[in-house]
Amino acid sequence: MKKPTRKIINDPVHGFITINHPLVFKIIEHPYFQRLRRIKQMAMASLVYPGAVHTRLHHALGAYHLMCIAVSELKDKKIAITAEEELAVKCAILLHDIGHGPFSHALEHMLVRGVHHEDLSLQIMQALNEEFEGALDLTIDIFTGKYHKPFLHQLISGQLDMDRMDYLSRDSFFTGVSEGVIGYGRILKMLSVDHDQLVIEEKGIHSVEKFLIARRQMYWQVYLHKTVIAAEKMMVKILQRARMLYDQGDQDIIVSAPLDYFFVEFNGKMDKASLDRFCKLDDGDIESAIKKWSTHPDPVISRLSNHLLNRKLFKCQLQGHPFDPEFIGEKQQKAIKKYHLSQDQLDYFVFTGDAVNTTYQIGDENILLLSKDGSVQEISHVENALIQGALSTPIKKFYICYPKK
Amino acid sequence: MKKPTRKIINDPVHGFITINHPLVFKIIEHPYFQRLRRIKQMAMASLVYPGAVHTRLHHALGAYHLMCIAVSELKDKKIAITAEEELAVKCAILLHDIGHGPFSHALEHMLVRGVHHEDLSLQIMQALNEEFEGALDLTIDIFTGKYHKPFLHQLISGQLDMDRMDYLSRDSFFTGVSEGVIGYGRILKMLSVDHDQLVIEEKGIHSVEKFLIARRQMYWQVYLHKTVIAAEKMMVKILQRARMLYDQGDQDIIVSAPLDYFFVEFNGKMDKASLDRFCKLDDGDIESAIKKWSTHPDPVISRLSNHLLNRKLFKCQLQGHPFDPEFIGEKQQKAIKKYHLSQDQLDYFVFTGDAVNTTYQIGDENILLLSKDGSVQEISHVENALIQGALSTPIKKFYICYPKK
Amino acid sequence: MKKPTRKIINDPVHGFITINHPLVFKIIEHPYFQRLRRIKQMAMASLVYPGAVHTRLHHALGAYHLMCIAVSELKDKKIAITAEEELAVKCAILLHDIGHGPFSHALEHMLVRGVHHEDLSLQIMQALNEEFEGALDLTIDIFTGKYHKPFLHQLISGQLDMDRMDYLSRDSFFTGVSEGVIGYGRILKMLSVDHDQLVIEEKGIHSVEKFLIARRQMYWQVYLHKTVIAAEKMMVKILQRARMLYDQGDQDIIVSAPLDYFFVEFNGKMDKASLDRFCKLDDGDIESAIKKWSTHPDPVISRLSNHLLNRKLFKCQLQGHPFDPEFIGEKQQKAIKKYHLSQDQLDYFVFTGDAVNTTYQIGDENILLLSKDGSVQEISHVENALIQGALSTPIKKFYICYPKK
Amino acid sequence: MKKPTRKIINDPVHGFITINHPLVFKIIEHPYFQRLRRIKQMAMASLVYPGAVHTRLHHALGAYHLMCIAVSELKDKKIAITAEEELAVKCAILLHDIGHGPFSHALEHMLVRGVHHEDLSLQIMQALNEEFEGALDLTIDIFTGKYHKPFLHQLISGQLDMDRMDYLSRDSFFTGVSEGVIGYGRILKMLSVDHDQLVIEEKGIHSVEKFLIARRQMYWQVYLHKTVIAAEKMMVKILQRARMLYDQGDQDIIVSAPLDYFFVEFNGKMDKASLDRFCKLDDGDIESAIKKWSTHPDPVISRLSNHLLNRKLFKCQLQGHPFDPEFIGEKQQKAIKKYHLSQDQLDYFVFTGDAVNTTYQIGDENILLLSKDGSVQEISHVENALIQGALSTPIKKFYICYPKK
Repeated sequence: MKKPTRKIINDPVHGFITINHPLVFKIIEHPYFQRLRRIKQMAMASLVYPGAVHTRLHHALGAYHLMCIAVSELKDKKIAITAEEELAVKCAILLHDIGHGPFSHALEHMLVRGVHHEDLSLQIMQALNEEFEGALDLTIDIFTGKYHKPFLHQLISGQLDMDRMDYLSRDSFFTGVSEGVIGYGRILKMLSVDHDQLVIEEKGIHSVEKFLIARRQMYWQVYLHKTVIAAEKMMVKILQRARMLYDQGDQDIIVSAPLDYFFVEFNGKMDKASLDRFCKLDDGDIESAIKKWSTHPDPVISRLSNHLLNRKLFKCQLQGHPFDPEFIGEKQQKAIKKYHLSQDQLDYFVFTGDAVNTTYQIGDENILLLSKDGSVQEISHVENALIQGALSTPIKKFYICYPKK
Repeated sequence: MKKPTRKIINDPVHGFITINHPLVFKIIEHPYFQRLRRIKQMAMASLVYPGAVHTRLHHALGAYHLMCIAVSELKDKKIAITAEEELAVKCAILLHDIGHGPFSHALEHMLVRGVHHEDLSLQIMQALNEEFEGALDLTIDIFTGKYHKPFLHQLISGQLDMDRMDYLSRDSFFTGVSEGVIGYGRILKMLSVDHDQLVIEEKGIHSVEKFLIARRQMYWQVYLHKTVIAAEKMMVKILQRARMLYDQGDQDIIVSAPLDYFFVEFNGKMDKASLDRFCKLDDGDIESAIKKWSTHPDPVISRLSNHLLNRKLFKCQLQGHPFDPEFIGEKQQKAIKKYHLSQDQLDYFVFTGDAVNTTYQIGDENILLLSKDGSVQEISHVENALIQGALSTPIKKFYICYPKK
Repeated sequence: MKKPTRKIINDPVHGFITINHPLVFKIIEHPYFQRLRRIKQMAMASLVYPGAVHTRLHHALGAYHLMCIAVSELKDKKIAITAEEELAVKCAILLHDIGHGPFSHALEHMLVRGVHHEDLSLQIMQALNEEFEGALDLTIDIFTGKYHKPFLHQLISGQLDMDRMDYLSRDSFFTGVSEGVIGYGRILKMLSVDHDQLVIEEKGIHSVEKFLIARRQMYWQVYLHKTVIAAEKMMVKILQRARMLYDQGDQDIIVSAPLDYFFVEFNGKMDKASLDRFCKLDDGDIESAIKKWSTHPDPVISRLSNHLLNRKLFKCQLQGHPFDPEFIGEKQQKAIKKYHLSQDQLDYFVFTGDAVNTTYQIGDENILLLSKDGSVQEISHVENALIQGALSTPIKKFYICYPKK
Repeated sequence: MKKPTRKIINDPVHGFITINHPLVFKIIEHPYFQRLRRIKQMAMASLVYPGAVHTRLHHALGAYHLMCIAVSELKDKKIAITAEEELAVKCAILLHDIGHGPFSHALEHMLVRGVHHEDLSLQIMQALNEEFEGALDLTIDIFTGKYHKPFLHQLISGQLDMDRMDYLSRDSFFTGVSEGVIGYGRILKMLSVDHDQLVIEEKGIHSVEKFLIARRQMYWQVYLHKTVIAAEKMMVKILQRARMLYDQGDQDIIVSAPLDYFFVEFNGKMDKASLDRFCKLDDGDIESAIKKWSTHPDPVISRLSNHLLNRKLFKCQLQGHPFDPEFIGEKQQKAIKKYHLSQDQLDYFVFTGDAVNTTYQIGDENILLLSKDGSVQEISHVENALIQGALSTPIKKFYICYPKK
């Protein structure tokens, strides 16, 4: 089939996204990419922010669009970028998240044990590259950081990459959380390259500060919202229970072909067959399993599934230090009494853990500011920097989840 | 469980939605209402507009929010509305779409044959009313138009109701189609009541014109977009084929409990049992069925399912007059040749139909303008009205769908 | 002084405007262009819409920005545009309104009698061209429509020019009138060129319809708002009175150097000297004159000035047919009684007139739609066109202004 | 004249502002309030941000609108606020800035020496109160902080007052600086009252952090932008020179009645006569003086005025420590050479100074967080607070301005 040479896609976040190269069309039309339509970018967050149902496909397209702008701005500043490099870096950002599975932050270690989503992205790119007869060679070199112009890799993965720029804008747009709105337009205008490293013009400092603060705010207000944590952990508990029941020989746990494979057969080694299976998995497989399990005879899995399905979520508390064992014990006693739990069922209903976030890690993937005189300095060294001390320390929070009264 | 007395929900479209009455909480927390989370407001439109994945739950909350504003504005204008009426009209708008099934515009007549979604909404309200011990009596009277203050019903269902006001705003927000943006803020400020009928102050005429034009634009640009039509009709064909295969005794068609019921047992009469089954159905049931059928041995259902799953949609053409039989024949020959179809399979691959939309139907649910001197006139009677003649004639368009080359 | 090679300007409407050519810098920094900072784009409209205080300079920059996008899109579609043409068409849009005087729609015929603002723009461009040693030759050829590629002129002045695209967006942004919001992003994406004429791809029809309707709405809701008309006509009356008093020898009317020249010396012929004087005139000259006249001994000019200064505006009525002489007489009697007016003062306090607007004039600067098969048709010929019949007829409205009770 | 009972005003920032009380109408229609139309909220900032031409009148209306929402939210939370208090607090916010003169931050000490704009606001309120026969008694008590419910005063003047909430939103809207966008909607929803003090619910902490950071960003990116500083200081220098020339007997300095009074007659004591004169002063008086002075024989005042008029601004540098005397001397030498300056003219062309801003001053007008258990704590005491240490230290920056090469 002859590919059209130009297409525009409406994006409520960025306006119009233009697709104007056959290779980009081929990637977007591929079933592996189309699968991202069926994976929500923010997993369970829509249980708290009802607008947050946007997909990973939408995010990939948005990040691609920002990459088009970034490359165009850099070229306007006379940074040398060849047509091949331009195409490759656009393909790389389109594919940067292709390895995400359903609810991946929560379930990564449940479904494809021991395989990280970035490794999966790379494996899928390699499979596509084979299918496309090497057209993605340079894309892969840039993605893996092997290419001799590091700034191209940094546009995909770094402190100021198009991935973060898009997901912060997109997530704040769809949740309606204005605290996450960033001035990405200005950051893109201020990007530059110095000694093959991505830098930002000094004048952009306030936009970068705002960007780092916005990310911090989104973590604590959205991504690590206590109700979102409760929902994600309940889902993990459901899958743990399902696997336990399956291991005990309960065949009723089996639900849908793509999910079953990872449940039953997958041995932790990703080969061509398992990769193909993986590329069929989506949110729907998990959701329909939970719906089915909500009527399963096992009281633990049916109760948890029922609660999650109908948004009867556990209560979650967050604080800066670990919970007192006595307090945990009290919640456990109440849960035992309420649901007549045996000791080995208790962990499915009362559980604790922690979450960590760092606003800006000094020394790791630094943000470099380019001053008018051509010198470069790291952002936390600027006079009166907003981004220093306190903000570069990781913040750890502890959570406990337990049934509501 | 004690209900909280006040909660706010982030809505990227309208800002913050406030819930401040126990009955409203009870409705929102009910599994029947939570089910709307799993039904997309715009069905297949996200295949063209990737942002359009918002849910019917979100729309119901948004319409409720607009109702809160509308009632507050009317009260500020000294229109008599009691606390009971206020609560009832808010509950009615929350529940106005509770009877929608998955992909309901496309599948209404496939799943619950002969039952209209508005009748289902009423039946579900009645079931909830029983559960809530009559708390929804007045809600139901207003919803069915029996209450002696027609303007309350018109706020739920009429030319300027909160349903349309929300879905136009919301759908244009999530698609990014600016042609559908309406000035609902101004319309709400201009609403008034005259002789118990909802009217709009004369000064609001331009906002109302804009609203009607926006609705027209959304129909042709979004709701009846040719690619959306292709996808919806392909889904209908898939379900037709599934039913045919099932009627021929093919048990592999059976997929998930909630869907199977309507496939296998439902006899066209909605009783308590079938209503309860219906209230478990959601988009996921259809989507996982299609995913399963994409590997079914029947070449028709597997091909169609596969195409829909991976967004390899049929080509769709739209025009103002029926397609020439010769042209249809030509497309049929190509499809036969391409897929080696038998004559009885042909209708699944090449099909025609029509779509109709009217911008403003004069004489039916008129929009009434209230002038400063207290007189009232219908909007198409205004001097130099934009809304007249041409715009009040229904527009019919004919479509044909067939496989791409 | 060495010009910087790249600068960005924040624009709340379009985001960031990039200036990246020395000639563009020179134009923007010129006092003739900087004068546009002191002329409000919407004249008196801020008396009704308090946000509408944006300037002609801002509009010129915005239109320039849209031109940058339009040219870039056309080049992406392989339309041949040389670097010289690109620069010239950008300079032309920057300068297209350089000939506007203060409150120009109202006062054009009061200050520079018989000279149209477009002629003034051309004369100022010629003066700048001399100063810039011919750098604007091509700019002027495109502006005057003499250049052999008409589409370049049409981007500056035509049904879909960057002037209208910007002023509609900008005026609706600053007034907050959502009825004027247009989907300019989509129109820009859909622009193309056929036989050297500017055309728009068929798929853009809804955006163009929306654009024409938005313009219509802005005329009736904003530009010809009755209170805005009242204010503008009061200003005209004030200047008429001032001139009459001056002609009668009243030297106190003289206020500020730039205004006085046009009051006292200008003979209707624009030469280098008068052009230079004109390029110093701005809103402030008129406003400070009115402030001064508000304490002038003549009761007519002081009353009118006082009223305008303190926003005690006359009442204005608008209707589709001329006002009844009896009604006018009644208002005149009341004014005479209220202010003890003599007969020759009456016209300053009660006055009538008319305003005309056409949504889309068929046959004059047509909008051409380019279909996929390469054929071109005029927009009103499309099936079920929104833009036809009624919308192509000019609408005339009659107004009367008179003192409030 | 009978006042209308309800009017809405379009505000692009907040939507629609409703006026629905006769006293509010009377204030808005008063010439003292209408004068605020002629004073730009952001003074010279439009020289850098061309959209920033919004007026103090617009800000006052916007702050009034936010007050309406805040009061309505507090009442919804059962905080006792009587109808009289509600009206008074709305009038107080409308009038809170009524004492601002033209370019007031820059010129406060030039025009009305020794009189602070807040004292002027109070004096004007008292004058209006006399005219309105005591209708503003309670308004004044709240404004001055004498009323026994401090939270009402805090809504007008405090860390989270409606003044800041509006100006940050409005200034970021009109400049297009997204770094200043705040989530005021959420803050308003979270406001509450504890022991008659304004507090904010704990959940609002991220919105408050964002608000404080946004204010900080606006200071350094906009209000204290180096080009804005250059323009403001040039204006101050022009007025200093004018006064010096006047004191030396130069009558040509005299320009317009309202300005002359403060130049010539004002003795530093504000009485009824001088208050009335003050209430006629606006930006236009300063701007037309500068325009006139641009052709004055004195080379200092004409050069400075000319430069400011045509935006040929001095270069301004900002840094965290004082400038080296040697560096200053070098700039002085260049200026002397360039403009042939005498020693006593030098200070008009090369000058230094400093600017200070504190993000959040602990111990002064604290922000109090209300937790669910009813306890209250100051925002910097929260675990992992963003607002602490570094942010509560004042930041001082030093500037130098000098002619460009």
